[in-house]
Amino acid sequence: MPQQDRAYATRESILHAAAEEFDRLGYERTSLTAVLARAGLTKGAFYFHFASKEAVARALIERQGELWAQVRETWHASGVDPLSALHGMFAESADRMAADVVLRAGVRLAADREIGYPGVPSAHVGWEKLIAGYVAEAAERGDLRAGVDPDAVARTLCGAALGARLISSATTACADFPARIREVLGHVLPCVASSSWKLSGSQNAVDGRAEP
Amino acid sequence: MPQQDRAYATRESILHAAAEEFDRLGYERTSLTAVLARAGLTKGAFYFHFASKEAVARALIERQGELWAQVRETWHASGVDPLSALHGMFAESADRMAADVVLRAGVRLAADREIGYPGVPSAHVGWEKLIAGYVAEAAERGDLRAGVDPDAVARTLCGAALGARLISSATTACADFPARIREVLGHVLPCVASSSWKLSGSQNAVDGRAEP
Repeated sequence: MPQQDRAYATRESILHAAAEEFDRLGYERTSLTAVLARAGLTKGAFYFHFASKEAVARALIERQGELWAQVRETWHASGVDPLSALHGMFAESADRMAADVVLRAGVRLAADREIGYPGVPSAHVGWEKLIAGYVAEAAERGDLRAGVDPDAVARTLCGAALGARLISSATTACADFPARIREVLGHVLPCVASSSWKLSGSQNAVDGRAEP
Repeated sequence: MPQQDRAYATRESILHAAAEEFDRLGYERTSLTAVLARAGLTKGAFYFHFASKEAVARALIERQGELWAQVRETWHASGVDPLSALHGMFAESADRMAADVVLRAGVRLAADREIGYPGVPSAHVGWEKLIAGYVAEAAERGDLRAGVDPDAVARTLCGAALGARLISSATTACADFPARIREVLGHVLPCVASSSWKLSGSQNAVDGRAEP
């Protein structure tokens, strides 16, 4: 393996090993020793790539941020109606998180830094605004029931997604997160959408079959 | 004040001061020094009542457990239909938590011990079972739409309540938790209930007016 590829592989193996620990234990209780043991690396190899545990955490948080931007872009480009795009983004995000510990750890680290401490959780406030924008767009198209408040729908979906992830993470290492998020969408969207709205786009059901 | 009353008052002031700190910072980051400063008490006075920070935390967790049993009992005795009882219990719990830091801290401590760490979150699993029981009872009475899975509804409500509490706690010290929980109920219950079901019982809206 050329030196550059080897360096890349080592960096990825550190990120992966750290993600495994962060995902299970959170930031505080993750030890660098455990990460090194998991990756089969020396401290020297680690410090060649990262200055600290904090630097690895920041790399994981950054990576999940990039992925969400990509998921949003894909669904924006798909041209489906806003409620279907919301459904697609939530479901795809849950699928990816269930499948990828690196992504899952990044999401947990980002959320843990906001939730449970005094101070404004800017990312969650940002998510609520983003989702409210989609729901408001649905309202303009006549896809929303009369009297439904887009901001309230955004608050419900954001909170439900956060709670579903936490319970799913604690019970099944997020294996049932895709199913839980689809249950949330199935319990909320038909309740707030107008009767003429129909889910569209290439939506994958949790077992891989297309949804009706 | 007789000695017994004074001892009771001191114990309560410790619980209250500790609750203020636990509610803001969680267990790990709460220091006994800050609790004592807040209560205006010496270490000696503290240790007369509690053996440790852990002992205060356990007292707060126990107290919130007793309160939920009481809320359940009240709604059970009210004789309203199961979905209305669920609505009432969720809303009343949120109202009480917004108003009472001792209760709020107990709930946070209990949840923090389960969420975010490997291991089965037994309380959340217990809540899901309890709620699923109410929804299953509603199904038997014909209050549920055909095809709705009571277990799935319980998972959605439990996750949504947890997420709503966490976001509300981080943004408004739970001041908007009553409004958020009613939004969740308003977005989910009409979607899963049969068209003939109507909310009944003495339900207080978030601003104190009776709900329609």
